Amino acid sequence: MIIVGERLNGQFDDVGKAIQDRNPEVLQKLAQEQVDAGADYLDVSVGTAVASRDKPEAMAWMVEAIQEGTDAPLAIDSPVESVMRAGLEKVKNPPMINSTSAEPEQLSKYIEMAQEHDAALVALTTDQDGVPNDVAKRTELAGNIVMAAMEAGFPFDQLYIDLIALPVGAAQQQPGIMLDALQQLQGIANPPPHFIVGLSNVSQSTVKRSLINRTYLVMCMANGLDAAIADPLDEKLMDAMITAELLLNRQIYSDSFLSAYRASKRRT
Amino acid sequence: MIIVGERLNGQFDDVGKAIQDRNPEVLQKLAQEQVDAGADYLDVSVGTAVASRDKPEAMAWMVEAIQEGTDAPLAIDSPVESVMRAGLEKVKNPPMINSTSAEPEQLSKYIEMAQEHDAALVALTTDQDGVPNDVAKRTELAGNIVMAAMEAGFPFDQLYIDLIALPVGAAQQQPGIMLDALQQLQGIANPPPHFIVGLSNVSQSTVKRSLINRTYLVMCMANGLDAAIADPLDEKLMDAMITAELLLNRQIYSDSFLSAYRASKRRT
Repeated sequence: MIIVGERLNGQFDDVGKAIQDRNPEVLQKLAQEQVDAGADYLDVSVGTAVASRDKPEAMAWMVEAIQEGTDAPLAIDSPVESVMRAGLEKVKNPPMINSTSAEPEQLSKYIEMAQEHDAALVALTTDQDGVPNDVAKRTELAGNIVMAAMEAGFPFDQLYIDLIALPVGAAQQQPGIMLDALQQLQGIANPPPHFIVGLSNVSQSTVKRSLINRTYLVMCMANGLDAAIADPLDEKLMDAMITAELLLNRQIYSDSFLSAYRASKRRT
Repeated sequence: MIIVGERLNGQFDDVGKAIQDRNPEVLQKLAQEQVDAGADYLDVSVGTAVASRDKPEAMAWMVEAIQEGTDAPLAIDSPVESVMRAGLEKVKNPPMINSTSAEPEQLSKYIEMAQEHDAALVALTTDQDGVPNDVAKRTELAGNIVMAAMEAGFPFDQLYIDLIALPVGAAQQQPGIMLDALQQLQGIANPPPHFIVGLSNVSQSTVKRSLINRTYLVMCMANGLDAAIADPLDEKLMDAMITAELLLNRQIYSDSFLSAYRASKRRT
């Protein structure tokens, strides 16, 4: 399971303030904690911490600040191309681009951008009409993403399709629809692309966020999800994820399977 | 989700001793606790508490003792026909028969037995060769069970197919194989039969039983499981189950969805 640590996001108060104050230690500490907890990538997002015109510079500063403390690969997270490019210019190690829509023009531009930067690419199953309500439209857009990657010679092991998790409290049929779409897409290519989810979205505005997040994560894993943007500092979430890996026969059983998994993820 | 409470089983020390001592209070207390926690059926098994020749009488006593305290439906649990019949003779409310194999002669006899007693029937995907190792044999046996029920006019909403959960610590590829079989069998009939699992088996001989049980339960639910023989007194297990029900859109979201679900299950 590939975990993209979600905590370096200006939407969290501590990170937002650190961006405004240009305080690198806060970011470096959160980066290290997430890496220690098993994050494979660190998501980096300015969020709403600064005004739009200041976001490219804030992103560039975040990337440099974080890289002073760790060499973990970064997932540059912005819907705005100038912010994305400002981050990509500063990255040292092959990053993840998070994200493009499936809208054809943006998709082909971002595939090219990923190729230039030796980057992984998250592609959302959204288009000019927004997030699809049903399984059929999600699988259609996933098909378009796969076709575009194939035509561009973009390797599937670098492609992360995001089927979009919506909040269970607001759109209650959506988490199940996403599970069905995941299941249907398992045979889309061989070897298949990755499937990723922005996990915390499912529990937005609920009062049992960790319980809902970890329950949905393992339900998604049982249907083929192999990556998540999530909080690796949520220990119960990581325990559930590791246990699902065990049950899917991706880790050998031992009585200490939880700590064995964590040890295997530790960066040397 | 239909929960068959597993605790009234002579393999647990407290229940085994209660059977030997003919102490009804222990059973009645466990019955009530499980009902309060949301059990739909109460599994009743003599287990290894007494010698084989004494099991029919012990089963009859258990059923009578439990029914003095509750009118919850019972799941009479024995691989031995004489023990099964001893329990069925005493039940007051429509019970569950747990279980028959898919071996044709036993299967047709037990379907008839279920029809006589207005009972639900658990049918295991096992035959004279034991538990299948692969997906194909499990789905074949499930198909045989469905065909036999159809031929006998046995209603699918009373039929519970058990695809057999094996211990992850001993047969590590088996939990994933069962998930695949579950997924493949979703279209087997319309309306479909129930799919049930003897959940605690998956964590046998491990040191993180509750974590493994609840993780596997929600993975199975994401693939169509709608019933489990499990411990309703494991609060974290029930929380995970209720959350999966929410995410599958089987319960309306409210901030108090956990207590709302529990209240909805309470027997009046």
